[in-house]
Amino acid sequence: MSARGKLTELFRKFPGIGPRQADRFVLFLLSQRKSFLDELIREIGNLEEETATCESCFQFFTRQGGMKVCSLCANPARDASKLLLISREVDLQNIERTGAYGGLYFVLGGTVPILEKNPEERIRIRELLHIIENRKEVAEIILATNATAEGEHTAEYIENQLKPLEEKRKVKISHLGRGLSTGTELEYSDKDTIVNALKNRV
Amino acid sequence: MSARGKLTELFRKFPGIGPRQADRFVLFLLSQRKSFLDELIREIGNLEEETATCESCFQFFTRQGGMKVCSLCANPARDASKLLLISREVDLQNIERTGAYGGLYFVLGGTVPILEKNPEERIRIRELLHIIENRKEVAEIILATNATAEGEHTAEYIENQLKPLEEKRKVKISHLGRGLSTGTELEYSDKDTIVNALKNRV
Amino acid sequence: MSARGKLTELFRKFPGIGPRQADRFVLFLLSQRKSFLDELIREIGNLEEETATCESCFQFFTRQGGMKVCSLCANPARDASKLLLISREVDLQNIERTGAYGGLYFVLGGTVPILEKNPEERIRIRELLHIIENRKEVAEIILATNATAEGEHTAEYIENQLKPLEEKRKVKISHLGRGLSTGTELEYSDKDTIVNALKNRV
Amino acid sequence: MSARGKLTELFRKFPGIGPRQADRFVLFLLSQRKSFLDELIREIGNLEEETATCESCFQFFTRQGGMKVCSLCANPARDASKLLLISREVDLQNIERTGAYGGLYFVLGGTVPILEKNPEERIRIRELLHIIENRKEVAEIILATNATAEGEHTAEYIENQLKPLEEKRKVKISHLGRGLSTGTELEYSDKDTIVNALKNRV
Repeated sequence: MSARGKLTELFRKFPGIGPRQADRFVLFLLSQRKSFLDELIREIGNLEEETATCESCFQFFTRQGGMKVCSLCANPARDASKLLLISREVDLQNIERTGAYGGLYFVLGGTVPILEKNPEERIRIRELLHIIENRKEVAEIILATNATAEGEHTAEYIENQLKPLEEKRKVKISHLGRGLSTGTELEYSDKDTIVNALKNRV
Repeated sequence: MSARGKLTELFRKFPGIGPRQADRFVLFLLSQRKSFLDELIREIGNLEEETATCESCFQFFTRQGGMKVCSLCANPARDASKLLLISREVDLQNIERTGAYGGLYFVLGGTVPILEKNPEERIRIRELLHIIENRKEVAEIILATNATAEGEHTAEYIENQLKPLEEKRKVKISHLGRGLSTGTELEYSDKDTIVNALKNRV
Repeated sequence: MSARGKLTELFRKFPGIGPRQADRFVLFLLSQRKSFLDELIREIGNLEEETATCESCFQFFTRQGGMKVCSLCANPARDASKLLLISREVDLQNIERTGAYGGLYFVLGGTVPILEKNPEERIRIRELLHIIENRKEVAEIILATNATAEGEHTAEYIENQLKPLEEKRKVKISHLGRGLSTGTELEYSDKDTIVNALKNRV
Repeated sequence: MSARGKLTELFRKFPGIGPRQADRFVLFLLSQRKSFLDELIREIGNLEEETATCESCFQFFTRQGGMKVCSLCANPARDASKLLLISREVDLQNIERTGAYGGLYFVLGGTVPILEKNPEERIRIRELLHIIENRKEVAEIILATNATAEGEHTAEYIENQLKPLEEKRKVKISHLGRGLSTGTELEYSDKDTIVNALKNRV
C-alpha cells in the first residue's frame, strides 16, 4: 500500500476520526510545506522521549531530570489522605481545572465494559491495590467514573475489589454526587436523575 | 383579517410554534373534514368547563362533582409532612411518574426572572405562604426548581420568603440534590456540576 | 375520556406534534384566559365558513362574494399556457414567493407512495386530467414535486397519465431542473446530484 | 514548550480540529505503543517522498518511476477535449466516484474569497492559462466550484480570465447545473434554488 493509504489507516485510529476526515488529514499534510511535516515528525518523536508515565497517579508528564512522579503527585501541599479515581487523564484535567479538589489522583486507564471477562486487563486495578496497600495515609477513595452504564459498572467492579481493604483499613469509599447537573430542566430529566436528586436532597 | 390569518396568529402563541408551523397547522385544519374541526371546537369548549384548578396544589384537574382539590391532594395516603414546590405542572407530572415521591406538591405557576421587580406577580408566593401557614403538619419544603440560572434565582427568592416560617415553625427547607445527571461524562461537565458532585459525594 | 385527554389526542394529529408537545399545548390552553379559548373556538369556526377550495387550482382561499376561483386563478395577467403541478399548497406559496413564475398552478393534494395500489386516491389526478382536457390553452405542464423518492415516483405516475394528452395535444411536459442547490458543496454531494449537475450543465 | 504542547498546536492546524480534540489526539498518541508512533513517523516521512503533484491536473499521486503526471491524466481513454475545474482534490475524488465524467481535471488548489485583492495567489490561475494555451484539443471548460458565495465568486473570476481565450479559441465555458439537489423539498428550498430549478427545467 502507498504511504498515503497507510497514513489514512493510521489516522482512522485517532479518536473520533472517520474515513472521510482521515482522508482530509492526508490531503492537508500533502498541501503543507516540507517544514510542517518535518516539525510534526520531530515532535511525535520528542513526545515519546520527553513524556513519562507518573509512577504514582499514572498520568503522563514531561520528564525532567530523573523524576519518576508528576509535579502534582510530588506537591507536598496536596492532601494525600484522599485518592480520586478517574478513567482517563482528560477527566483528571477537567476536575483539576475546577480547583475544587486538593487530594491526589489515580488514572485507571480505561473502563470495564459490562460483559468483560477480564476486567483486570481493562483498568490498572493491580497497580491501584498495590498503591493503596503501601500508602497508609489514604483515608478516602473517591470513585469518579462517568455517570454512564459503563462508568457505573467500572465503579462497582472497583468497589468489590477494594472491599477487603475497606474493612481492614477503614478506608472510606465514596462516589461523586448524583443529581441535577447545571442547566438541567426537570421536564426533560430521566427517572434516575430525579430519583437521585430527591434522595440526595440537601 | 381573514380567519386564516387570525388563526395563524393564535397558533403562533402556542409554546414552541414559529410562523412556518403555525401556517402548517392552519393548512392542516383546512385539509381536515368538518367533523375534525367540530370535535376540536367542542373539546376546547369542554376543556374550559371540565377543568378546575386544585385549591391545594394549583394543578389543573378534571372537575368531578363539587370537588375543589385534585385526587392527588385528596389522597390520604400521601405524606402531608412534605411539600414539594415546582414551577410548572409538567414538572409535577415528570416527578410523579418516577414513583419516588410520596408527599404533596405545590405548583408555583412560573419562575422569577433575575431582574424581576415584582416577583410576587410571577409565582404564587402569597398562596404558598397562606397554605403553609394553615397546614401545621408541613415539616419539610422541597424546592424543586430547574437547575438553571432562573430556576435557582426562583428558589432563592422563595427561600427568603420562607425564612420567618422556617425559624418559627422549624420547617426544614431542602433542595433537589446537585451532581452528575444520568449519562453525564466528566470530560464534558462544567465546573459547577463537578464542584457539586465533589461536595455532595456519597 | 376527559376533554383534556381528547384534546391531547387531537393535537397529536397536528403535523410535527408528538405526545409531549400535545400535552404542553393543552397545559398552555389551560393557562390562558377564557377570552383566548373563545377566540380560538370562534376562528376555527370562521375558518370553515370563510374558506373555500379554488375550483381551478385547488388551493384554499378566503371566500368573497360568490367567487369560485382564487384571486391568482382569476388574474388575467397570469400566463394560462403554463400549468405547474405541486403536491401541497405550502409548495405553491414558496414558489409564488420567488416571483419567478407567472403561470398557473394545480395543487395535487398529496404524493403517491412507492407501492401505492390506488394512486388516484392519493392525488387529484382525475381533476387534473379534466382541467387540462378543457383548457386548450395549456401548452406546458411543469412537474414540480419534491426531489425525493416519493416526489419522483409521483411525477412519474402523473407523466404516465398525461402521456396520451401529451401526444394528442402536443403539450410539453417538463420537470424542475436538477443540480446543485444553493449552498451545496461538491465534497458532500451525493452521486445523483453530481450526475445531474454534470448532465444539466449550462 | 514541551513536545506535548507543540504537538497539540500542530494538530490544531489540522482541518476541523479544535483545542479539545487536538489535546485528545496527543493523549491518544501517548497511550499507544512505541511501534504505532514509529509507524506514524515513518509514513509521514514516506508520504513526502512518495507523493508528487501531477504536472497536468495538480492532484497528488504516488510517484512511480519518473512519472510526472498522474495515472488519470496519463490515461489515453479520457476525453481530452473536456477540462473540469475543481477547487480541491477531494472534489475531484467525489466527481470521479460517480463515473459520470470521462474528461480531464484541473485542481485549482483553493477558492477566491470575495474581497481578495490578489486572486492569482489563491488559485492556480497562471498554471491553468498555461495549460489551456498549450492544449489545443480543449473544447469545453467546465467550472465545477461549490454552489456557495465563495465558489461562485471563484467561478466568476476564472471566467473573466478565460474570456480572451474563449473568444480566440472558441472554447466553450460551462457551469455545473443548478436546481434541486437529491432529497430537496420545495417547502424548505431557498429562492435561488427555486428560480434556478424553474429556469433550468428539463
